[in-house]
Amino acid sequence: MSRNDMHKLSRETPVAALETPHVTTNPLTPSPTTTGAQMYTFLEKLFPICRSITGDGVRQTHGLIKAELPNLNIQEIPSGTRCFDWTIPPEWNIRDAYLLDPAGKKIADFKKTNLHILNYSTPINTQLSLEELQDHLYSLPEQPDVIPYSTSYYDKRWGFCLAHNERKALKSGTYRAFIDSSLEPGHLTYSDLVVPGQTEQEILISTYTCHPSLANNEASGPTVATFLAKWLLEGAPHKYTYRFLIGPETVGPIVYLSKHLVHLQKNVIAGFNLTCVGDNRAYSYLPTRQGDTLADRIGKHVLSHIAPDFKRYSFQDRGSDECQYCSPNVNLPVVNLMRSKFLTYPEYHTSADNLDLVSAEGLLGALHVHQRAIESLENNATYKATTICEPQLSRHNLRPSLGATKGLSSYYKNISDILAYSDGRNSLLDIAEIIGCPLWELYAIATTIEDRGLLKRID
Amino acid sequence: MSRNDMHKLSRETPVAALETPHVTTNPLTPSPTTTGAQMYTFLEKLFPICRSITGDGVRQTHGLIKAELPNLNIQEIPSGTRCFDWTIPPEWNIRDAYLLDPAGKKIADFKKTNLHILNYSTPINTQLSLEELQDHLYSLPEQPDVIPYSTSYYDKRWGFCLAHNERKALKSGTYRAFIDSSLEPGHLTYSDLVVPGQTEQEILISTYTCHPSLANNEASGPTVATFLAKWLLEGAPHKYTYRFLIGPETVGPIVYLSKHLVHLQKNVIAGFNLTCVGDNRAYSYLPTRQGDTLADRIGKHVLSHIAPDFKRYSFQDRGSDECQYCSPNVNLPVVNLMRSKFLTYPEYHTSADNLDLVSAEGLLGALHVHQRAIESLENNATYKATTICEPQLSRHNLRPSLGATKGLSSYYKNISDILAYSDGRNSLLDIAEIIGCPLWELYAIATTIEDRGLLKRID
Amino acid sequence: MSRNDMHKLSRETPVAALETPHVTTNPLTPSPTTTGAQMYTFLEKLFPICRSITGDGVRQTHGLIKAELPNLNIQEIPSGTRCFDWTIPPEWNIRDAYLLDPAGKKIADFKKTNLHILNYSTPINTQLSLEELQDHLYSLPEQPDVIPYSTSYYDKRWGFCLAHNERKALKSGTYRAFIDSSLEPGHLTYSDLVVPGQTEQEILISTYTCHPSLANNEASGPTVATFLAKWLLEGAPHKYTYRFLIGPETVGPIVYLSKHLVHLQKNVIAGFNLTCVGDNRAYSYLPTRQGDTLADRIGKHVLSHIAPDFKRYSFQDRGSDECQYCSPNVNLPVVNLMRSKFLTYPEYHTSADNLDLVSAEGLLGALHVHQRAIESLENNATYKATTICEPQLSRHNLRPSLGATKGLSSYYKNISDILAYSDGRNSLLDIAEIIGCPLWELYAIATTIEDRGLLKRID
Repeated sequence: MSRNDMHKLSRETPVAALETPHVTTNPLTPSPTTTGAQMYTFLEKLFPICRSITGDGVRQTHGLIKAELPNLNIQEIPSGTRCFDWTIPPEWNIRDAYLLDPAGKKIADFKKTNLHILNYSTPINTQLSLEELQDHLYSLPEQPDVIPYSTSYYDKRWGFCLAHNERKALKSGTYRAFIDSSLEPGHLTYSDLVVPGQTEQEILISTYTCHPSLANNEASGPTVATFLAKWLLEGAPHKYTYRFLIGPETVGPIVYLSKHLVHLQKNVIAGFNLTCVGDNRAYSYLPTRQGDTLADRIGKHVLSHIAPDFKRYSFQDRGSDECQYCSPNVNLPVVNLMRSKFLTYPEYHTSADNLDLVSAEGLLGALHVHQRAIESLENNATYKATTICEPQLSRHNLRPSLGATKGLSSYYKNISDILAYSDGRNSLLDIAEIIGCPLWELYAIATTIEDRGLLKRID
Repeated sequence: MSRNDMHKLSRETPVAALETPHVTTNPLTPSPTTTGAQMYTFLEKLFPICRSITGDGVRQTHGLIKAELPNLNIQEIPSGTRCFDWTIPPEWNIRDAYLLDPAGKKIADFKKTNLHILNYSTPINTQLSLEELQDHLYSLPEQPDVIPYSTSYYDKRWGFCLAHNERKALKSGTYRAFIDSSLEPGHLTYSDLVVPGQTEQEILISTYTCHPSLANNEASGPTVATFLAKWLLEGAPHKYTYRFLIGPETVGPIVYLSKHLVHLQKNVIAGFNLTCVGDNRAYSYLPTRQGDTLADRIGKHVLSHIAPDFKRYSFQDRGSDECQYCSPNVNLPVVNLMRSKFLTYPEYHTSADNLDLVSAEGLLGALHVHQRAIESLENNATYKATTICEPQLSRHNLRPSLGATKGLSSYYKNISDILAYSDGRNSLLDIAEIIGCPLWELYAIATTIEDRGLLKRID
Repeated sequence: MSRNDMHKLSRETPVAALETPHVTTNPLTPSPTTTGAQMYTFLEKLFPICRSITGDGVRQTHGLIKAELPNLNIQEIPSGTRCFDWTIPPEWNIRDAYLLDPAGKKIADFKKTNLHILNYSTPINTQLSLEELQDHLYSLPEQPDVIPYSTSYYDKRWGFCLAHNERKALKSGTYRAFIDSSLEPGHLTYSDLVVPGQTEQEILISTYTCHPSLANNEASGPTVATFLAKWLLEGAPHKYTYRFLIGPETVGPIVYLSKHLVHLQKNVIAGFNLTCVGDNRAYSYLPTRQGDTLADRIGKHVLSHIAPDFKRYSFQDRGSDECQYCSPNVNLPVVNLMRSKFLTYPEYHTSADNLDLVSAEGLLGALHVHQRAIESLENNATYKATTICEPQLSRHNLRPSLGATKGLSSYYKNISDILAYSDGRNSLLDIAEIIGCPLWELYAIATTIEDRGLLKRID
């Protein structure tokens, strides 16, 4: 008597009992095409706004998100507030800015793209020679056709960013530099949204709103976060509590952690920082400092089945809010599951990171990865077999009664493997990794076996 | 003064003291050729019997083994007995079976090969059309010239197995199906044999008797088990107790574990399931679920030196009685050291798994591997060096006194390595793995060093 | 706000604050060429002396070292003293030795090279036939043009070593064998030197003085040891205490350990055995038995950055004093960082291991490796970040305030990485290994960060 029961035998009349049950995996997005298009449309609204770490552009951005997520809790913290080693800077706002060349022609015009202005520029309205002006110009000789994105949050500067080719064509003479900005005591804007579950254990989803018109490395993050929150609010089954955090990169999490560190360290079991989730060229993974948290394991598992050739980065390649979440005295298990990672694609932090770079497919793929990760976290469980020795599976309708030649189908093999490895220590995720299949092919099967009384859930 | 003492120097007169002592490794089988032939002859007796999980064929098989091993303890358990999740089925016996074709010609004749009958077929004696008959026929379109082996132990069915080409040639018309079998309350037969040692620690050797005329995946197992038991009973030195278990696959171990689980979990330190140990094409290893038990380590060690290109399978590839021994609530350290593994060779579970597939060499090789494994388990030990610093080896006749140019011979190197690594934690097996030599080259040397007082056994 | 701050932007006027500070790494040897030449000159003095495990040649050698290191503490232990399993042999001295061939020509002349005499030969002055003489001749057929080095410390023998081609050319006839040696109760000579530090924790540096005219596998060791001691005595900054041990190979450490084992086991945190540190063909690493001590980690780290293609040996390849230091009941963390390892180069233990084989560059490279290893041990430390979240680095002058396009320079990246990985468990060595840079590029940076109050040293 062998466990390798036959069901590939040739029979003219199929035997119904031998049919492999059809395993339905939950379709995560009922109409993927529609969702991708909706995401892209939302991103288009966010893209043109001039954001920085503070200011009305940020307020406007959070307002657009709140229009989608009415329970979004928008908060402000005054300039000058100390948070850990940091001090909230003055609020920056800008209305207009441009250079006039010697012929009176407007160049580096804020109205054409907000990238032209050094972010956080102090106000200026002055005449100066080209030589004097050069100290205030920023360009990229290696990428002479794109406008770089640059900032000076904590040292007072003013400046203009422009394509290197345009800069080289500037004629000698007198220029006028005009920046109608203000740098005054105000507030820093951030928001959070808590989607309650059945337990206090939390999944943290973080993203940022501080870059002006950049698409992959800015607008994609709040877009995917918004649609992930909508998916949960509209009924995606979940037992964990979900906490969304949206604020300026770096100082946003620092503000938030300064208020909620103890709570987060106690409750967060996994987290995802949404950055660079908009283009369609790659999937990328950046680990926590430890590299082996539940978030790391789930993230790698999901990517290895959805995009087996995904790029694996090191924590040394960090650069977004994982720098705060994974810092030594914070230690939250937050990973980045990205499309093309910041600093690795040529358009990064230039005017080429625009609406053409990102796509409905890119955004939807990132959404899908995070939905799978959430679904995997929600459905992972550890079981222990209840019988001594294998159960008599055919009696439980978990194996064909006709034993035969050439081994089990993958459905029956999965039943056998779940039972064989469920020793009270291996989780379904462990078993999925051992047998090399997606965790989401095992949920329903494990539940079926549990319903027969052959597995007992122990976590 | 260097430990790399010379002994490759050219001298016209050899110096006796420098000669490397001859290390004799115990010849495991005094006359290998004779033993292989005896094994094959015994297998030939087992092969033709129609076995199943119960019945007179099984009784006859155990009787043939008892003729070789008079102390074999044959036992029976009644149909209907509950063992863990299982119930002992009715006893099946068969006397004759065949099909008559429309021309009255006998086909699928039990007397030609018992594989023609679906194992555990209910009795039948009826006329039916070819169309009706098809529901009861089993064949393999991908291997159209061989008869498949098939079973239906727990659902009542009757059927015939035949070559697909023969099936396709069947003409329309009226057939007679005749199976003179019985399925009635009776018993399941199994047996055990305990070869006592000096300790209660046990080595478990398990094999199965439930397949009809199949050679590699049936008759080879009881054959190797029988000759392994004879080797121990005829004086192979051993301190451990050896327990042989022979019964139907799956339900045999389940019956036995239902009676002896506590004893086995307390005493078994390593076990070997004998399956597919008859052909001469490969050596194969299938681990325990944990993969790192003593049985795993010894099994891999032996194969890596006897057959360095042996095939390593995963516990996912399990299929024989390791499914029970390694199940979560049993957890016995039982591995399979096989020749061609079940499910991986084309003849598996077909009429081509016959006396031509197995050979004296194949059986003898499997015997030899298990003898080496047993010998390795028996002789493995952990020592601790008794001196601080290296001993003055030349004074103990454990190193040439003439120090010189080009390093030590392997004998003196082994002496040095055993002393250098015997820190009270490394076993001889560990040391053999570290230095890459077979454990059986180290036994005698370690004993020699121990006799000089330079090593102390600590386990 | 991104941590990937720009500083590769094109600006006509460089901004001083953006300049990457110049990191000076301590130049280990102010005038490498001079030092290498001095080392070679010293080695030339040691080379011609006829050393053995005892005798006046050894005394003369220690005297030459003491001339360089006046605090060297030369000690003697009498013949017959028992040290662990060993007994100090009689003292051997030799004044002259040669063979006279039948024509009265002097061959195998001690005055030409001391390798001609089997080391520890008993005195002889006799006539004998070529046939009788053959029992006392040693040569290497595989290397027929070189004189082998051979010894017989513990069995009384006399003999001559010569080139195999010379031996083959010997004519029949009567030879005179003359060895003016003595083997009498005397002493074994060894010495130590302790360079005190601020702590009792010690670094052990061991080398040997027992081979006659061999360069790489003898004279290089005391040469590098001498210059390493001079470097420390002349002011190389150190907190650890350094203990130099110089004696005959094997029995030297055995004598020393028999007197100082408890002290050494308590205090030694890392050690280096100096053997084969003179030629310029390779760098080699031989681990401790455990393979993962601090000495192993530092040794591999230094070599991987100084000579990335260094050869990694196993503890099985041991052969020098690591055999004693790493023996099971001693367990001192002593590694060998070598040039061409004993037993692996063709000139080993022959007359070809001479002044042509070693070089100023070879010796200096070995010195440099050990200086880097010491410096690394001295400067390694474990820190813990003092802030929650990253500090505001630009405020501390540890990051450019102008944030921008393309990531951080390696200096600012190193600052960020030290902070990100300093969780109180990772040492600077761990961090250097994680980020793949030499430890010596991180010392000064860590100190700078510590000075800002952002790191706290915890070991």
